[in-house]
Amino acid sequence: MRVGFVQLEPVFGQKDANIKKATQMIDKIDADLLVLPELCFTGYLFKDKDELENLAEKIPDGPTVEHFLNLAKKRNVGIVFGIAERCENNFYNSACMVTPEGELFLYRKLHLFMEEKDLFKSGDKKLFVIDFKGTKIGLMICFDWIFPEVVRILSLKGAQIICHPSNLILPYCQNAMVTRCLENRVFAITTNRTGKERRNEKELHFIGSSQVIDPSGNVITKASSDHEEARVVKIDPDLAKDKKFTPQNDLWEDRRIDFYSEILTK
Amino acid sequence: MRVGFVQLEPVFGQKDANIKKATQMIDKIDADLLVLPELCFTGYLFKDKDELENLAEKIPDGPTVEHFLNLAKKRNVGIVFGIAERCENNFYNSACMVTPEGELFLYRKLHLFMEEKDLFKSGDKKLFVIDFKGTKIGLMICFDWIFPEVVRILSLKGAQIICHPSNLILPYCQNAMVTRCLENRVFAITTNRTGKERRNEKELHFIGSSQVIDPSGNVITKASSDHEEARVVKIDPDLAKDKKFTPQNDLWEDRRIDFYSEILTK
Repeated sequence: MRVGFVQLEPVFGQKDANIKKATQMIDKIDADLLVLPELCFTGYLFKDKDELENLAEKIPDGPTVEHFLNLAKKRNVGIVFGIAERCENNFYNSACMVTPEGELFLYRKLHLFMEEKDLFKSGDKKLFVIDFKGTKIGLMICFDWIFPEVVRILSLKGAQIICHPSNLILPYCQNAMVTRCLENRVFAITTNRTGKERRNEKELHFIGSSQVIDPSGNVITKASSDHEEARVVKIDPDLAKDKKFTPQNDLWEDRRIDFYSEILTK
Repeated sequence: MRVGFVQLEPVFGQKDANIKKATQMIDKIDADLLVLPELCFTGYLFKDKDELENLAEKIPDGPTVEHFLNLAKKRNVGIVFGIAERCENNFYNSACMVTPEGELFLYRKLHLFMEEKDLFKSGDKKLFVIDFKGTKIGLMICFDWIFPEVVRILSLKGAQIICHPSNLILPYCQNAMVTRCLENRVFAITTNRTGKERRNEKELHFIGSSQVIDPSGNVITKASSDHEEARVVKIDPDLAKDKKFTPQNDLWEDRRIDFYSEILTK
């Protein structure tokens, strides 16, 4: 399976131009599965809810989803992208996966970061996995990485590849994902954006460094910190079905779930 | 609070000599809390259960615990050490904490590594925290590191410092503990041993590199990979009570426990 990331540098608010550029990059790639960053067509630093309302879209009825469903079919590729979702009077920081077969899957970020809490509603649906060409795919978004429960649950549900659209500004996640992949023996594609956004006297610098990691914690490929680029690697997703960390240690069989209940009782 | 590790290189089976050397090192240190490696008086590579039976001890009635209870009192220091425990007809890979007040706490490793499964019974008691001089201490042993549930649960129970006696041979744990400390905002003292053991035509090389990490994921101090040494650092354990990763992100308040139940249902 050929999987990869499309590391982008969207211009805030220029949705059509951002989509066009992403499309041009995808048009040049042969892959089975591509992951784009979080909120990668709108930009990240919304001034307020009015601005967000102008840029967010209904799902599945918005034009961005329609465009990428068509592109997935045309290019015969599964595409995961972050999107600002409007649903009734609420906004969600969401990720979609579209497939060549016309399927659409929607995840709403469970763990919002900083000022996202002022704009978005926290995800209100369970974590789930997608059966894509015989491989199970899990979706999470950016700051979800710091909660070990997220990759754990996706992996326990059978996910072999974690698709992780991100807008990272802090230096911790890329390294943490090595441990996430090791402890769950899964692949992860973390796609970050690059560039800066300055709005409301606040400036954010996104650190790129998108990466693909394998179930042994090896970083198979890693992008630059400062420019747009796409990379595709060939992987065997079935490696993620083998939970043996050593010949005697199957990480699933070794779990002592009778001793884990405090996770739910804090 | 002055906390640290005593990185040792025990000689297999030379329990008295190993205890003597550890004692001499501790006698030279001023600290409030010291962590020694896993199985640090017996050595690690037991040929069989008969050999283990000769070296394991009852707890609290064995001479090693008695010795370290006296030493804790004499030196006014809390001491955590790994020990081979015999209890009726079972053996456990255990950790003790002894305090100057004469208290003894016992943890039995929940997740056994490789051939340990042939010798030891898996831990059969819940994870717990110890109130020590106003600071909450959690105990875990070596391979427990790869199960994110362990540090998570200890931290949710209030642990501010994770004491982590180890006999590490693989290169992953030291880096993973950075993420464990970040995701739970706790301190961790991972004490590893050094040297080689060759028995039954099997050779293990222990990689040292004991370390103390703070709740922001900084490695405060780190030992060599190849020789015995003790290090003590001054820390403020109350930093681990603040679970704010950003001003708007308290890692405890942000948890979405309604969405985590799959951890217990695999």
